[in-house]
Amino acid sequence: MPPMKHLTGGRIAGLYVGDSKGTVKRPVSSVLLTLNGIEGDAHAGRVQKTGAREPTFRRGTIVANTRQLSLVSVEELRDIASRLGIAYIDPAWVAANIAIEGAGPITQLPPGTLLRASSGASIYTAELNSPCRVAARLIAEHVAYAGDAPAFVRHATGRRGVVGFVYAPGTLNVGDELEVMRAKAQPTRD
Amino acid sequence: MPPMKHLTGGRIAGLYVGDSKGTVKRPVSSVLLTLNGIEGDAHAGRVQKTGAREPTFRRGTIVANTRQLSLVSVEELRDIASRLGIAYIDPAWVAANIAIEGAGPITQLPPGTLLRASSGASIYTAELNSPCRVAARLIAEHVAYAGDAPAFVRHATGRRGVVGFVYAPGTLNVGDELEVMRAKAQPTRD
Repeated sequence: MPPMKHLTGGRIAGLYVGDSKGTVKRPVSSVLLTLNGIEGDAHAGRVQKTGAREPTFRRGTIVANTRQLSLVSVEELRDIASRLGIAYIDPAWVAANIAIEGAGPITQLPPGTLLRASSGASIYTAELNSPCRVAARLIAEHVAYAGDAPAFVRHATGRRGVVGFVYAPGTLNVGDELEVMRAKAQPTRD
Repeated sequence: MPPMKHLTGGRIAGLYVGDSKGTVKRPVSSVLLTLNGIEGDAHAGRVQKTGAREPTFRRGTIVANTRQLSLVSVEELRDIASRLGIAYIDPAWVAANIAIEGAGPITQLPPGTLLRASSGASIYTAELNSPCRVAARLIAEHVAYAGDAPAFVRHATGRRGVVGFVYAPGTLNVGDELEVMRAKAQPTRD
C-alpha cells in the first residue's frame, strides 16, 4: 500500500448525454452515474452486443458493457481540430460524455485507470476509443470541414479518448476536479 | 482492425469454487460464468464493498465488482513454492478460481486483457492480485511450511496472478484451451 498511484488531476470541462447512438449528444451541467452508466444516455446499460468493434466475437454476443462512457480531452480535441484545419471540435459532435481539461492526454491512460470526482463517483477506463467515420460525418454537419473521413480517422488516432464504465456511482458536475489514479499493485482479496 | 492482439494461448488446469471468503476453495470440473462471476462462488456479485484493498475509497463504498474471479498460473505457483522451500501450492489454498497452465506469467497480463474459452466465456482482467497474509495462513494449514507470512508475501509478490470480471457468460471446463487477447486499438463506438 498505497495501491493507487496518483498520476495527475484534471477538471470536468463538459458533460453530454444523448438518447440514441451514432448521433451528437447534448450538453448538460450534471449527470448521475449509476453502475450501468449515465442515467438517460443511449450508451448506458449492464450489457452491450458485440459488433464491428469486437471482430473476434460473433456479432451480437451479449457481453459486459465496458463502453458505457466516452471520455475525451479538451486539449486532444483541439489538437485534432488544428490538424484538420478547423476552428473547433465540440465534444458533443463526437458523442463524448465527458470532456476533461488539464489531465494530460486522456487517450494515453491505460486500461484500469480510475477517475474520481469529489462526490466519490468513479470511472474505470477500459480501452482506447479509436476514431471512425461516423464521428467525421458528425463533425462535417457542424463546421465547414473540407477534409474527408479518412483524414479524421488518421488525425484522431491516438487522440480520440477512452471508453470505460462506472466503478462507483454518484454525481458528476461540470467544473468538478478529478483524481486520476492508476491501478498498480492492489493488495490481495484472500 | 484487428483490434485484438493475440498474445499467447493457455489451458485451464483447474477450477475452484468456494462459498465463503478467506477460506480455501474446492476443485470442480466446470463452472458457469454469469455476468456476476462464478455461479455459487463467494466472490461473485454485481458489486463489492471496498475494504483494505482500496484505501483511497471510504471503507464500505459500493463499487462495481471488478474482482469476481482470481486467476493464477500453475508455473508461477510452482515458482513461489520453490522459493518458499515447499513441495507444492494448490491453487485452492490461495482461494484461486482458475489455474492456468501454458499461458506464461499471468501476473504480468495488463488490465484489459481478455481470456476466452471455446464456449465463448470470457474474462476481463482488471488488476494485479497482491499477496496477503491470509493466503500464507491457508498454505500453512496444508503443508509443513516453515516460513512466515511476510516471506510468503515477499516471494509471491508479482507472481500471485490477477483478478477480473466476466466479460462474456458461458461455461468453463478443466482442460479448455484459452485465447489470451489484449485490448489494443478498438474501433470507435460512435
